[in-house]
Amino acid sequence: MLDSIPSFSRLVAELAKFPGIGNKTAARLAFHILRSQESEALALADAICDLKKKIRFCSICHHITESDPCPLCTDPARDEQVVCVVEEPQDLISIERSRSFHGRYHVLHGALSPLDGVGPDELHMHDLVERLKEGRINEVILATNFSVEGEATALYLARLIKPLGIRVTRPAHGIPMGSDIEYVDEATVHRAVSGRQEL
Amino acid sequence: MLDSIPSFSRLVAELAKFPGIGNKTAARLAFHILRSQESEALALADAICDLKKKIRFCSICHHITESDPCPLCTDPARDEQVVCVVEEPQDLISIERSRSFHGRYHVLHGALSPLDGVGPDELHMHDLVERLKEGRINEVILATNFSVEGEATALYLARLIKPLGIRVTRPAHGIPMGSDIEYVDEATVHRAVSGRQEL
Repeated sequence: MLDSIPSFSRLVAELAKFPGIGNKTAARLAFHILRSQESEALALADAICDLKKKIRFCSICHHITESDPCPLCTDPARDEQVVCVVEEPQDLISIERSRSFHGRYHVLHGALSPLDGVGPDELHMHDLVERLKEGRINEVILATNFSVEGEATALYLARLIKPLGIRVTRPAHGIPMGSDIEYVDEATVHRAVSGRQEL
Repeated sequence: MLDSIPSFSRLVAELAKFPGIGNKTAARLAFHILRSQESEALALADAICDLKKKIRFCSICHHITESDPCPLCTDPARDEQVVCVVEEPQDLISIERSRSFHGRYHVLHGALSPLDGVGPDELHMHDLVERLKEGRINEVILATNFSVEGEATALYLARLIKPLGIRVTRPAHGIPMGSDIEYVDEATVHRAVSGRQEL
């Protein structure tokens, strides 16, 4: 049926390429665009082009940025002596939102996953070590995900960094804020109890 | 944090305007665009512009189309004597997908909803009656939704059309395919039993 409206079915096909968006949702989004003002639709199209034109990766920390080096790497108010290593730019944004960290960052752009062909050379590990060798950094927080790949990456990096005489830490495991202990999985409870803290 | 990357936060804001897409999903979609090939992102932007440029509404049935009148209104293989009335273009597409109907359509672009200020003049009802008065149509299927507004719209149209001596029908209520009767709501079961059919 949609074959008779090629511009519509083309947009649905393009939108359905997004992760987690199937054909039905894509059609719903396309109808929303169809109903919106022309200026709004053009603003969206323009924002997409603009993003591809302006965004690049910081040559120091590899976070997304419009200026290189990025504001996080050049901000003199941030602590130069601590580096937080994350897998993806999203993780960095999440940590920034928590306002819990005021040092520098390093984005690996992935985690070690030999089965998917992702080894140390596919990630930005080599220049992390170069940054550390400059001698200004005295702590590395390994904030990779708490998945199998993330844990493996953290372990690998810890072994690489410790010989440089730099403190290596990892964010605490434990029970999330607002949870009922009853419903938390046993591995998390185990880690929370064994990592209990003095009040 | 995202304030330092205006082109990124602008795209997130534009994407978050979609129905059912919040800031987190919008950020995920924006990251997907960021990671995709430039050609793919431009294809999406182009598809959005193209849709707004090419799509209009058919002057006869008010379905979305690139040519006026639309292929559904001009197809000589379709039955001219039956018109199916739906609320939205999506409903028409859904009926076309079911391959259950081979007549003409009429899209109202909404349903009667006095509280939202939608009366008969806000919908394409007037020219539906004009189409019927031409005398070629002998059945109208009222396929508005089975919601309060949709039922009210069907009732209103039935009263308008019956005096013209045209048969007025409505798709059957009943238990959906593949359902356990146990889990179907009582109003649906009630309708299904009272509307039972001879085998």
